Amino acid sequence: MGVYLRDIPLDEAKQRFEAALAEARLNGVLGVEHIPLDEHALGRVLAEPIWARISSPHYHASAMDGFAVRAADTEGASPTAPRTLLLGDHVAWVDTGDPLPDWADAVIAIENTEPLDAQGNPAPDPRRPHAIRIRAAARPWQAVRPMGEDIVATELVLPAGHTLRPADLGAIAACGHSTVPVARKPRVAILPTGSELVPIGHAPKRGDIIEFNSVVLAAQVKQWGGEPTRFPITPDDLEQITARVREAARDHDLVLLNAGSSAGSEDYSARVVQQLGDLLVHGIAVRPGHPVILGMLHVHGRHVPIIGVPGYPVSAALTGEIFVQPLLARWLGTSAPEPPTLKAHLTRKLASPAGDDDYVRVTLGKVGERWVAAPLSRGAGVITSLVRADGILIVPRGLQGYEADAEVNVQLYTPLAALERTIVAIGSHDVLLDLLAQHLARRNRRLSSANVGSIGGLVALKQRHAHLAGCHLLDPESGEYNVAYVRRYLPDTEVALVTLAHREQGLIVARGNPKGIHGLTDLLRSGVRFVNRQRGSGTRILLDYALQQHNLDSAQIAGYDREEYTHLAVAAAVASGRADCGLGIPAAAQALGLDFVPLFQERYDLVIPRAFAESALLAPLFDVLHDAAFRAQAAALPGYDVRAMGTVQLLHP
Amino acid sequence: MGVYLRDIPLDEAKQRFEAALAEARLNGVLGVEHIPLDEHALGRVLAEPIWARISSPHYHASAMDGFAVRAADTEGASPTAPRTLLLGDHVAWVDTGDPLPDWADAVIAIENTEPLDAQGNPAPDPRRPHAIRIRAAARPWQAVRPMGEDIVATELVLPAGHTLRPADLGAIAACGHSTVPVARKPRVAILPTGSELVPIGHAPKRGDIIEFNSVVLAAQVKQWGGEPTRFPITPDDLEQITARVREAARDHDLVLLNAGSSAGSEDYSARVVQQLGDLLVHGIAVRPGHPVILGMLHVHGRHVPIIGVPGYPVSAALTGEIFVQPLLARWLGTSAPEPPTLKAHLTRKLASPAGDDDYVRVTLGKVGERWVAAPLSRGAGVITSLVRADGILIVPRGLQGYEADAEVNVQLYTPLAALERTIVAIGSHDVLLDLLAQHLARRNRRLSSANVGSIGGLVALKQRHAHLAGCHLLDPESGEYNVAYVRRYLPDTEVALVTLAHREQGLIVARGNPKGIHGLTDLLRSGVRFVNRQRGSGTRILLDYALQQHNLDSAQIAGYDREEYTHLAVAAAVASGRADCGLGIPAAAQALGLDFVPLFQERYDLVIPRAFAESALLAPLFDVLHDAAFRAQAAALPGYDVRAMGTVQLLHP
Repeated sequence: MGVYLRDIPLDEAKQRFEAALAEARLNGVLGVEHIPLDEHALGRVLAEPIWARISSPHYHASAMDGFAVRAADTEGASPTAPRTLLLGDHVAWVDTGDPLPDWADAVIAIENTEPLDAQGNPAPDPRRPHAIRIRAAARPWQAVRPMGEDIVATELVLPAGHTLRPADLGAIAACGHSTVPVARKPRVAILPTGSELVPIGHAPKRGDIIEFNSVVLAAQVKQWGGEPTRFPITPDDLEQITARVREAARDHDLVLLNAGSSAGSEDYSARVVQQLGDLLVHGIAVRPGHPVILGMLHVHGRHVPIIGVPGYPVSAALTGEIFVQPLLARWLGTSAPEPPTLKAHLTRKLASPAGDDDYVRVTLGKVGERWVAAPLSRGAGVITSLVRADGILIVPRGLQGYEADAEVNVQLYTPLAALERTIVAIGSHDVLLDLLAQHLARRNRRLSSANVGSIGGLVALKQRHAHLAGCHLLDPESGEYNVAYVRRYLPDTEVALVTLAHREQGLIVARGNPKGIHGLTDLLRSGVRFVNRQRGSGTRILLDYALQQHNLDSAQIAGYDREEYTHLAVAAAVASGRADCGLGIPAAAQALGLDFVPLFQERYDLVIPRAFAESALLAPLFDVLHDAAFRAQAAALPGYDVRAMGTVQLLHP
Repeated sequence: MGVYLRDIPLDEAKQRFEAALAEARLNGVLGVEHIPLDEHALGRVLAEPIWARISSPHYHASAMDGFAVRAADTEGASPTAPRTLLLGDHVAWVDTGDPLPDWADAVIAIENTEPLDAQGNPAPDPRRPHAIRIRAAARPWQAVRPMGEDIVATELVLPAGHTLRPADLGAIAACGHSTVPVARKPRVAILPTGSELVPIGHAPKRGDIIEFNSVVLAAQVKQWGGEPTRFPITPDDLEQITARVREAARDHDLVLLNAGSSAGSEDYSARVVQQLGDLLVHGIAVRPGHPVILGMLHVHGRHVPIIGVPGYPVSAALTGEIFVQPLLARWLGTSAPEPPTLKAHLTRKLASPAGDDDYVRVTLGKVGERWVAAPLSRGAGVITSLVRADGILIVPRGLQGYEADAEVNVQLYTPLAALERTIVAIGSHDVLLDLLAQHLARRNRRLSSANVGSIGGLVALKQRHAHLAGCHLLDPESGEYNVAYVRRYLPDTEVALVTLAHREQGLIVARGNPKGIHGLTDLLRSGVRFVNRQRGSGTRILLDYALQQHNLDSAQIAGYDREEYTHLAVAAAVASGRADCGLGIPAAAQALGLDFVPLFQERYDLVIPRAFAESALLAPLFDVLHDAAFRAQAAALPGYDVRAMGTVQLLHP
């Protein structure tokens, strides 16, 4: 087998891995276990078909509480000509489930009989009468569950490869089994490596990386039916890593070696695999994920496949989905589940490298009659892009992306039903939106929000990519908020301006305000480094308006060109010492333990096209805005005035 | 609270239960547990929102292996005017993930640099050069992951009520948590009662019922996030049951009392609930399931809800879905998952009692462009109807059913993707179909087969309810199989007749053939009880043809009117002693250890409309018919001749 230092196509990598597994006879079920038939068998995969050992019912059973009879004895009974049958040799009480007496071929339910005593009066105990009077003939086999009604002995009950559900366990028990043959769970060793890693629970110092890929991979393995073992962190040391891999290979079916798989300075994975077996693939043309390694170890007289998983968390998780999930499915004798898909329209143009299979995380929402897919951050380090993703769009190799509005096929992570109750908010960010999301969740709605600034939100509404936009745009002409902008961007749409709150804006400064910043004029001082918000954001418009009012020249502000996209990002820049101040909201300052210099009060509205405002989807949102608990929680945040919350202003075209 | 002896509507029952839970303050999350953040947190439900404690990254990090620089120092560099930067105070090597030095604001990836030694030659160790030459200026913050790129401290990462997936665990770790607050798992006691019950693993005697409802209920509870405890079987004894319920209520949140909930003779559940608390509901207008009990125990100073679960297995499992699943979801603070639905056309008229919500199990398949739903057995005792069900059709109270072909809404059990690769077979049964199902499963196809006899299968094809029909119909005129019937039932369709096998038909008799049955004439003997197949079945047609050929009078055959629907059911009738013989295939006789008297050989074909025969869906079926392993397994079954297997005869309209 050759070693490849440049990326090969995903299909080729899979084929090469496949061939090596086949050669090592590791391409089928690893082994059969006979486990007790109880609730712990749930979710296990049948390694053999289940054939019925006994029938169910395994005798003719009464289906009712009543009297077993011979149908022939009841012939002629009618409402006008009742027949009376004496209890005895050929009439007997049966409970539901009781075996039918040999001489009987029918059951009459107790409610269709008149139990009598010896004198012909109603019997005191209807279950032990002297005789019964009936007013209808019994059909043969009525109210009887014949032997084998449910399952006939020797029938196929369930095929091999079937994943056991609750009712399956009942059927397997009913046909005479007390154990169940299932595929042995594949044992997967997960080895985090890297001298910069610290375990979860250790406060990370600058440069430390919290090691959590092993938890994500272990949870994936568990979810897919395997048995994960998480090893402790191994530092970047070739000998130590080699020893660990050798140790893990002893009693595991698969080794996942995390990080150290790129071409960087301390990347030992490829060398370890070469030392202990065959390096099959090094580098795959899939994005994110490139530096994946596939190999086959030969140690302890066995073959053990190994996957070098990239270190970036999104790459790591996707490597799990692309390589580990299908392998585990094969070892369990089942097929990897096929995620449901949905056709949706892209909210923006998507450029993709033609040489790669590109896995793009998207959020989804149904805006009007159209499904829209909004691409999330492409960064391989941004794990929240996986957390927030409603699905994955795979841009296949050979394609350079899609135009905005193109219809694409998305594999769903989020169930369709949940997507159908998703409210899509695009626009300016405010911490109240997080609080709103909490309250909407209790009312069976999901809030999916993307932060692109106020103008970006209005553009999204115009393009019908969102149900609502958070907006705080001051019109320098009128001094009024939002109205002029909505008229400009949505001239033909009837729109509800729904006030969320009035909020303070001011300067976020380091704790103790060491640079003594008290107003906008201080921004022009030498030695004061500012961090700005992006063009089009309400905060930026507010700043520019105020600078103009005070005849201050933005060119003299150091850092005016450095743009951040959220209040919290501005606060983070100040907290890290990268800047001395930025304009933002007090909640952001408080969040990072910073000080705040209040300067302005602004109105933050939710802009909602009227058709959406009146939809059943958004109705719970208006309930929340008038919910006392929500209002109280919002008012408790620093700098918020909620008295106008929920006020609606309708703008007609 | 009153006691109700007659069924009340499902909605009313739910409301009454709801009100009692609210009164006992048992209508929210039961408690919060802080568990370690590892793979065991998978599938648990967040009891509190997760806010970021630290940012991720929590420092500015290099996104590449390369050199940290000040962007300003690189200005002007171009392909024609390269710049050389000395390593030192303001140029330094960084690995991916390393913190950016305080003075730096950009990283140049190593592949975009020329590392040089002191003489201006390529450096021997590119990571430790004397200087680097660059041919492009660096943009500020290029190849840097700024602090908070993924998560900004204080941000909402995940809302309460969220069910944890693998990537979520990574995001929670990344933002500084080492434990996770999840809803405590509800503890559910499952109490099987009934003197007729025997545990799994005990060979059941006549009248014994294998107790498996507790396993099904426990698996349901586990699947829905609860912690089940299965109690041993309690006999039908009021005192013992009362003691068990009291014991279970001590340390469980919910008690499921199985069986004993109807109005039968040994049905103690309602009395137990009345003794230990409030009987809220006794009998619900839902089918199957009627005798459900809902109650609230007051024992040990606590309130513990109790559900009396009916004894029939389908009723028990549906009671779980209707009452236990939503209750557990509420106690976990999540919403019960909404199953996806599908619109499909009913294959037959469906009558339903107007007073009940009727839960009808159906199989589904896509035949041509239409989805079709075939109702399964309605019997509450037929657990295979749940095993085989692809979904549930709820006929709401007030509706008396649907006409054949009506479009109905089905809640899916089987994922849509699996349904899309389902081949629907309706017609005559043969054990080879079970074997075929096994082999198709390995080729990514599901075989859904319903046994309605050969003629029924042709009718199903005509109505486009199936892709293929198993058929063995002798034409008495020509002595030929199937052709004449296909022409009669499908006159306008181009059809492929695909031979599955030639198989023996003969008389299935008790072991040792005690009645000395050797041919058809024996059927007319006094004391010989026959069991017949249903009208329209190929076996019945074969029998009638042979009787006519031999001038035998069917009226003289005892049992000629008693009809069974499958070969195995005929064999079961003989095995149970209910009949002395029946016409069928040798595999059925062998399956139940019976003897067989061969009489005829017949051809069993798969009848497939050409459009389906040539579809991608059915292609793997033809592969199986030519698969040596399949043919060998089929040939090994008694009475099968597979030499013609896979032979295709095209019939044109």
